[in-house]
Amino acid sequence: MKSIDYSLYLVTDETKPNAELLSIVESAVIGGVTVVQLREKKSKGNEFYEKALALKALLDRYSVPLIINDRVDIALAVGASGVHIGQEDIPLQVVKSIIPSTMIVGVSVKTLEAAKIAEENGADYLGVGSCFPTSTKDDAELLADGMLQKIRENVHIPIVAIGGINKENISELIKYQPNGYAVVSAIIQADNPKEATKNLLREINL
Amino acid sequence: MKSIDYSLYLVTDETKPNAELLSIVESAVIGGVTVVQLREKKSKGNEFYEKALALKALLDRYSVPLIINDRVDIALAVGASGVHIGQEDIPLQVVKSIIPSTMIVGVSVKTLEAAKIAEENGADYLGVGSCFPTSTKDDAELLADGMLQKIRENVHIPIVAIGGINKENISELIKYQPNGYAVVSAIIQADNPKEATKNLLREINL
Ligand code: NI
Repeated sequence: MKSIDYSLYLVTDETKPNAELLSIVESAVIGGVTVVQLREKKSKGNEFYEKALALKALLDRYSVPLIINDRVDIALAVGASGVHIGQEDIPLQVVKSIIPSTMIVGVSVKTLEAAKIAEENGADYLGVGSCFPTSTKDDAELLADGMLQKIRENVHIPIVAIGGINKENISELIKYQPNGYAVVSAIIQADNPKEATKNLLREINL
Repeated sequence: MKSIDYSLYLVTDETKPNAELLSIVESAVIGGVTVVQLREKKSKGNEFYEKALALKALLDRYSVPLIINDRVDIALAVGASGVHIGQEDIPLQVVKSIIPSTMIVGVSVKTLEAAKIAEENGADYLGVGSCFPTSTKDDAELLADGMLQKIRENVHIPIVAIGGINKENISELIKYQPNGYAVVSAIIQADNPKEATKNLLREINL
């Protein structure tokens, strides 16, 4: 699967126990989330694998693609639709050399230079952020002024806006025409993840 | 390469800067180390990859196999001879499903049950330990009395003794006839890694 609908892109965090996370993701998918990224920074390989496997089984039932953050081996092990890497992970060209051509690769960027390099090296999409201040990613640095627009105008692959996006601020990003909006806490920490998802989609007129 | 000489098995730690580590490993290989495992627990994907790549280039010059701890994706990326997993990493059968049949897999065990399961599931060798108290691995638990012998008598794949092994105690293990002896600090922290390696080999009559 090389063509993914990035419209509303849920990224998980490690704040919820597994069973609860699965239930939140299912509600979010029913609410309209189009793609899910499993992001684990602390869990061991077997926990990460078991979590990815359970999430994959759930998402398959809804034909929603699963993307694995950082660990290419976990993505390969569960047959994920894609892998998402940052600037500190295994380099893009190397990742591409060890995955099947059907698996997509997304790359986090915060500069135009990094965006262009990732596009040249065959990234399938870019995660661009942080768009707003966030407490989720400790290493999240705010994008420079006008950077989302600059990247939008200079690359041709899909762009997913990320970082601190919630129902109050998501509509401010519409003018930059990203292909999708990635959220973490706005859905994971919501009292009602399904309604939160619908509200986010409403804000971006989807 | 499915046949590896496990006799003196060097496992790296993260206490040395990269350049120094490479120099230590080269001295150890010249001294007689037969296989090297790169073990990184803190480094990011790109650091781990770069380190593995440099180590692979060095070891290739001496035809000494490189084994990567835990990260199967790094092992695939650099074309390592093998990968070594613990009980908390991606499960053995899953690892085997994503690596080429030419790549070996070693598994850390400390019980007979785990040893037999790993053998049944196709492990190429076992790392058995901790044989002696050690400060290198925070999760290293001492083997139960007689366990090395019990495992030796009940599995048919190669066994590498590991954990706290140094020139003072290595000869105590000879009676258990392991196929190899793994060391960390005894070489990495030695004033003269080449001499330290030779001394270890002398103790086991190699
Ligand atoms: Ni790890």
